[in-house]
Amino acid sequence: MTTSSTGPNVTGGTASATEAVPPASASLSRRGVLGLALGAGAAGLALGAGAGATAGVAVGRAREQDAAASVYDFFGAHQAGITTPVQDHLHFAAFDMMARTDRDDLVTLLQDWSYAAARMTQGLDVSATGAVGGSPEAPPDDTGEALGLAASGLTITFGFGPTLFENDGEDRYGLAAMRPAQLEKLPAFLGDDLDPAHSGGDLCIQACADDPQVAVHAIRNLSRIAFGRARLRWSQLGFGRTSRTTAAQSTPRNLFGFKDGTANVLATDQAALDDHVWVAASDEPAWMAGGSYLVARKIAMLIETWDRVRLSEQEAIIGRTKGAGAPLSGGDEFTEPDFHATGADGEPAIPVTSHMRLAHPELNDGNRILRRGYNFVDGNNELGRLDAGLFFLSYQRSPEQFVTLQRALSTDTMNEYIRHVGSGLWAIPSGAAPGSYVGAALFA
Amino acid sequence: MTTSSTGPNVTGGTASATEAVPPASASLSRRGVLGLALGAGAAGLALGAGAGATAGVAVGRAREQDAAASVYDFFGAHQAGITTPVQDHLHFAAFDMMARTDRDDLVTLLQDWSYAAARMTQGLDVSATGAVGGSPEAPPDDTGEALGLAASGLTITFGFGPTLFENDGEDRYGLAAMRPAQLEKLPAFLGDDLDPAHSGGDLCIQACADDPQVAVHAIRNLSRIAFGRARLRWSQLGFGRTSRTTAAQSTPRNLFGFKDGTANVLATDQAALDDHVWVAASDEPAWMAGGSYLVARKIAMLIETWDRVRLSEQEAIIGRTKGAGAPLSGGDEFTEPDFHATGADGEPAIPVTSHMRLAHPELNDGNRILRRGYNFVDGNNELGRLDAGLFFLSYQRSPEQFVTLQRALSTDTMNEYIRHVGSGLWAIPSGAAPGSYVGAALFA
Repeated sequence: MTTSSTGPNVTGGTASATEAVPPASASLSRRGVLGLALGAGAAGLALGAGAGATAGVAVGRAREQDAAASVYDFFGAHQAGITTPVQDHLHFAAFDMMARTDRDDLVTLLQDWSYAAARMTQGLDVSATGAVGGSPEAPPDDTGEALGLAASGLTITFGFGPTLFENDGEDRYGLAAMRPAQLEKLPAFLGDDLDPAHSGGDLCIQACADDPQVAVHAIRNLSRIAFGRARLRWSQLGFGRTSRTTAAQSTPRNLFGFKDGTANVLATDQAALDDHVWVAASDEPAWMAGGSYLVARKIAMLIETWDRVRLSEQEAIIGRTKGAGAPLSGGDEFTEPDFHATGADGEPAIPVTSHMRLAHPELNDGNRILRRGYNFVDGNNELGRLDAGLFFLSYQRSPEQFVTLQRALSTDTMNEYIRHVGSGLWAIPSGAAPGSYVGAALFA
Repeated sequence: MTTSSTGPNVTGGTASATEAVPPASASLSRRGVLGLALGAGAAGLALGAGAGATAGVAVGRAREQDAAASVYDFFGAHQAGITTPVQDHLHFAAFDMMARTDRDDLVTLLQDWSYAAARMTQGLDVSATGAVGGSPEAPPDDTGEALGLAASGLTITFGFGPTLFENDGEDRYGLAAMRPAQLEKLPAFLGDDLDPAHSGGDLCIQACADDPQVAVHAIRNLSRIAFGRARLRWSQLGFGRTSRTTAAQSTPRNLFGFKDGTANVLATDQAALDDHVWVAASDEPAWMAGGSYLVARKIAMLIETWDRVRLSEQEAIIGRTKGAGAPLSGGDEFTEPDFHATGADGEPAIPVTSHMRLAHPELNDGNRILRRGYNFVDGNNELGRLDAGLFFLSYQRSPEQFVTLQRALSTDTMNEYIRHVGSGLWAIPSGAAPGSYVGAALFA
């Protein structure tokens, strides 16, 4: 087992300079780096949804007036950040376990991450001493840039990649027998142009918040907590959510300028969630019950090329109007598309190779996924073109749902304007029970 | 002169699908690509501050409730985006003029940019036909991803780099005689590690908004309008403003976790603006009256190293406490620092090499600048470290103010934790009069 002495310090100070931040329960026994208490007695971890609203230094930004109202429980039957109303900003990170780490390192990492995530999602620092408490002669536990910012709807969602269970035939953590049969590297798809530096990872963390500084703070601190055990493999910032998970959320637009996510699975549609998103208790393996599978695809958009396509062709490629987002068969955004409708020329009003038709459940045996993607701009290339696109995230009960849809899109006329440049698949375990940690069932 | 036939089309359609967007004045004569009308008769360009508040498709995101209230005039004595209350998001872009362009190309580019900027800052599409109007058989003028989003406080600020006036001894646009004597590449500073790919540029555009999608939309569309005339050289996204320009704004934190911008020049301090920010009519050259000079420095922060520094040392480096941001000589955030105060050890309470002391006006002959920087995270490097830092932006009456301050920081103990990796200097002309364009005085 590696030592964690070079990681963030657990400072033993008594008085916290951040008076508004309640100290962690004194009954917490310390484990790992930041000290995660286990067992039913650790009530200090079961932070209620209201705890964070008044926490932190009372300095507000304008947007906190509404963001402060959004505080989501970390603990629960399912992990937050899946059906949660999609926040405006994303920081996604994939990690690899470091060499010479063992099962105990992995377990304590997950415990430490869960402890810190439970606090940060409530608007608190990563530990009781936090950013400015503890000893002045030690580095603070928390890096501090979120001091004074509200919880801002932060959710932190953890996942396990195929390589965590078995990597080049090696069963590093005694988990090979627990690997879900479907959790394997996604198959190659037509047109894939994947960069290994933006693909895969033993572990993933999706941090979503209505303030990007809060999401960045979460990934930065979780990365720091992982010191000596797991290393950041790649990360992605995103903005302008490209889906919605509640009917109250408007449908946002992707960088092709079209509404995206109109037909997404909504958090209120329990039947659809049970059918398409949550792993059932009867599914294999048992430890995944209440979990889901997350697919990430970094999709570069050739926006300069797209921008030169005439409006009617753009709409034919998508299958919807650009303004209202209505199906080309008529109606408004939420009108069901009529794939049998024909135009004046006798051709289908919704072209057979349109993106919307190819992806529609009606033509995919009712197959649906819960999308949760974001737009991204990563600067520009040497030709002066913006390095921009869609960071696609989808949750589904089985990876096969994504594979089926992606294969159906092989004739998508949109393919001329996009490149899949990054990819990953992770098993998303169920939510942690209060006092426990994410993934505990895997190690039971 | 280059042709612009491959740029965005000017579509001649009559009916706009975006009914809520008012058409541009029919009296506008068309010039350049998107058609900028000049002269006193072009009242259609003098969009009032209220015009944008109700424009655009009436689809709201949660944050629009407040963002919609922020609509800033594009036209005025000074360009917006300098003293404007600092918005939450930045997309900054530097451009180079393309080979074989002439003075007329440059003038029409500035006219087209001004026309589009005047519209976008009011929450409108880049042109009257916009994202979904005009002919379905032509590419839309506007790329569409901001359809339905409010103006979100968007400001667009244009600048001219030294190379626009003279590049390798070549006076491409007949402007060499107009170059401000102080507008030249910044001198080298101790520790500079500049990447030419993130430095310089004939032109720059600073787009700030409270919605990143709105800022990105602005840069994307201005870049598109420049097609064939200027090419994006580099760009930078930023979040979490690291300064404030009004007393009502709280002081945000940089990625070292400290409050940044406490002592910034405020928009209400007219005397300080006149002394330190705005070029006076008596300054040379005359066409710069009412303008300013913008310095951009991309400053990488070695955050993993910083995070291992003990709290007392972090505070000694900054000169302020981490929690409240108070000077180490005592008081609260807004207490004036006492550089003569000593600690129990007899040493200065505020170390002589602290960042705050070295940069303080009291020790720099009253020299002040208006800062407007942002935090950035550009993913991570191959060691798993976040590629993060501060995108420093400052406005000053003379570049010499920045040079003096930066030289004073040569003994800054913070230098161990930062690297300046990008740099640029631009002359920021005064604001455009209604019906005119940014920089008109330069070509008069």
